[in-house]
Amino acid sequence: MKSVFISIGDELLNGNTLNSNLVYLGSQLFSMGFPLERHVTIPDNKSEIKKEFRRAWNKYDVIIITGGLGPTDDDLTLDCISEFFRSPLRLNNRTLNNIKKIFRRRGLEMPESNIKQAYIPEISIPLENPTGTAPGILINKDKKVFCALPGVPAEMKAIFSKRLKPLLIRKFSREHRKVFLSRTFCLAGIGESKLFDVLHPVWKKHFGSGNENIKLSYLPSAFEVRLVINVSSADKNRARRLLRKASDVIQENAKDFIYSSDGSSLIKVVSGILKRKKLTVSVAESCTGGLISSMLTDISGSSLYFMNSVISYSNEAKEKLLGVSRETLRKFGAVSREVAIEMAEGVRKKSFTDIGLSSTGIAGPKGATKNKPVGLVWIGYSDKNSSDAVKFIFSKDRLKNKEIMSKAALNFLRLKMLKIK
Amino acid sequence: MKSVFISIGDELLNGNTLNSNLVYLGSQLFSMGFPLERHVTIPDNKSEIKKEFRRAWNKYDVIIITGGLGPTDDDLTLDCISEFFRSPLRLNNRTLNNIKKIFRRRGLEMPESNIKQAYIPEISIPLENPTGTAPGILINKDKKVFCALPGVPAEMKAIFSKRLKPLLIRKFSREHRKVFLSRTFCLAGIGESKLFDVLHPVWKKHFGSGNENIKLSYLPSAFEVRLVINVSSADKNRARRLLRKASDVIQENAKDFIYSSDGSSLIKVVSGILKRKKLTVSVAESCTGGLISSMLTDISGSSLYFMNSVISYSNEAKEKLLGVSRETLRKFGAVSREVAIEMAEGVRKKSFTDIGLSSTGIAGPKGATKNKPVGLVWIGYSDKNSSDAVKFIFSKDRLKNKEIMSKAALNFLRLKMLKIK
Repeated sequence: MKSVFISIGDELLNGNTLNSNLVYLGSQLFSMGFPLERHVTIPDNKSEIKKEFRRAWNKYDVIIITGGLGPTDDDLTLDCISEFFRSPLRLNNRTLNNIKKIFRRRGLEMPESNIKQAYIPEISIPLENPTGTAPGILINKDKKVFCALPGVPAEMKAIFSKRLKPLLIRKFSREHRKVFLSRTFCLAGIGESKLFDVLHPVWKKHFGSGNENIKLSYLPSAFEVRLVINVSSADKNRARRLLRKASDVIQENAKDFIYSSDGSSLIKVVSGILKRKKLTVSVAESCTGGLISSMLTDISGSSLYFMNSVISYSNEAKEKLLGVSRETLRKFGAVSREVAIEMAEGVRKKSFTDIGLSSTGIAGPKGATKNKPVGLVWIGYSDKNSSDAVKFIFSKDRLKNKEIMSKAALNFLRLKMLKIK
Repeated sequence: MKSVFISIGDELLNGNTLNSNLVYLGSQLFSMGFPLERHVTIPDNKSEIKKEFRRAWNKYDVIIITGGLGPTDDDLTLDCISEFFRSPLRLNNRTLNNIKKIFRRRGLEMPESNIKQAYIPEISIPLENPTGTAPGILINKDKKVFCALPGVPAEMKAIFSKRLKPLLIRKFSREHRKVFLSRTFCLAGIGESKLFDVLHPVWKKHFGSGNENIKLSYLPSAFEVRLVINVSSADKNRARRLLRKASDVIQENAKDFIYSSDGSSLIKVVSGILKRKKLTVSVAESCTGGLISSMLTDISGSSLYFMNSVISYSNEAKEKLLGVSRETLRKFGAVSREVAIEMAEGVRKKSFTDIGLSSTGIAGPKGATKNKPVGLVWIGYSDKNSSDAVKFIFSKDRLKNKEIMSKAALNFLRLKMLKIK
């Protein structure tokens, strides 16, 4: 089973829009047993689009296209499908009614330009879009599936998961596919090359180096490395055994750094511990400017453990809102172990939570002093039994620092909570 | 001048990693006059990589590759370049010293596996990587430029901007290039199709519909639509005139919704107004969980206008930390115009800032009641002269709601500040 993904849009090539659809479709197709062999991004240009359709149709079994289905005149996908398959565009009344319904729900009249979206190639069937006006377009022909979806991520995902995914699974029955299995370990506190030097020799001993059926990828990101094991085999049991053995090798050799062995994000793991241990947390943020709190509230149900936060940029706010002593601020400076601890204690006491967490540092690019470089951060922690703080020095980039510092704070919180009985 | 960008890595195709490099390279190359004609993502597979190198070398003048330069054994780019150009890998001592220097600076010893990164094809020259261990690889041959850069965005950007960009500009002198100009308007408060219906007829009148030299793209995103005008011409003055005329058409017909006419983000515009008018702001957040504050502090120098925030998830916190009256909470509920206004007033007074901003709503997916659906938010505003609040109903997706609600709050703040003398 060979699959390809084509994204259409000038805005993707000239840097105006970030394409996040590849991440979603790639992981979906991978886990379904149709791993993507290629992704291509092309401009809003009829001859380029039709050339790419030709290549894809000749070589792949599953062809997924996104973009160019909107109401404006740089949206060319429907025209190109019509010309490529020599199938005229016809008004589809059900689609038109769906579009009208969406505007009615919002209390608006349908603008003229949206009518265009209801003209679809005769050869295709429309896939209803539950949240937007552009329908998906499906052509199921010659043992192949050709499908165009809207480029807006939420709309693409809704149509893919409700309509296209079940169809693909039905059409290409299990027998014709290999089994693909994958497992992701998430690690914090060790760098990519250090980890490679630790793991590679044992990995090689067990699995050789050119084994087609098993592969280990190292994916570094802010404060983390993800290790992804990919296994493929025609035999399901063999694939399972390989994956289990590989997981054991990683567990045994890197256990001190693993925070999840199922790809769960750091915030998901942290919120799981908070809920399981019935702990509540409040946060006092300086350099991270609200990002720790925002991460803690990204999870539905966070009101069970997250009470409140105080973001104190100024020394005055640290004194007034958190009760940090003026003496400590003067003696050690705002970016110090002592202030981090007083912030964590202060927010915990004022909020009546089990735990207080804090950040104070220099996100940059300005604000450094002789002894306090950009990227320096102190993370503070306080519970009813003890307080502690930890120091890191990260990068010179403000946004990167805010993210890494916030993740470092969540990881410090995680490690401390694991010790609470 | 034709340019192509090739990304290498299984993790990009199977959904493990989001590729943000296309946005940066796309916009850089576009503004330099080498617009990207194509972007391809391929797996870590030697024969696929070499096939793609062949296609690119035959068709394009500028070929940029990212990924596969790391220290681990799924990093194949150097091997493939060596085989494709029939040029053996040789140890480059300057590169090795740079790698060693990076580890020394961090107080670490160089792991064995990093030595591999200093073996580069004889035909190439290394481009020093200021922040990471993988050097860039440049081949300047047959009137073409072939360049491999690390996939880590910060490293790719550093090498591109310091080394590759100046080289491309030198090598392909202006005469051989068309002039490409672009301008981005950012709008809030109007949807894409409505905007199209307003603008399209006037646009068509001025520029026709198939004009190769000028193009208008509509790019919708959370709470915003960006309008991008792209102009190209062999004649610089003609390109400038076209761009000016197109800008006038947009300004005249959509002026009520435009918040920037140079592509500046909403937070940049808001922080500009705060600085220019010497205003300070504090924030009381409920459903947005810290994201408004985090956005306000994404800008360097935000300590000039941002004082502090209180994130109050619970009713108790709204009472204790912000002084919202128990009576108001009981009578109207936490998600109401009245509470939004008391939160904004409370945080402004407690923080001694010129302005207080607030959010209270239901981010979802749970928490809805009969009269208060998921996606409902009240944004509150308070300054010394008046207070106000505005209501929106957004989507059912928690993360999307947090983002849209935060942007809606920033836009409300912007509109209110414009009226302050």
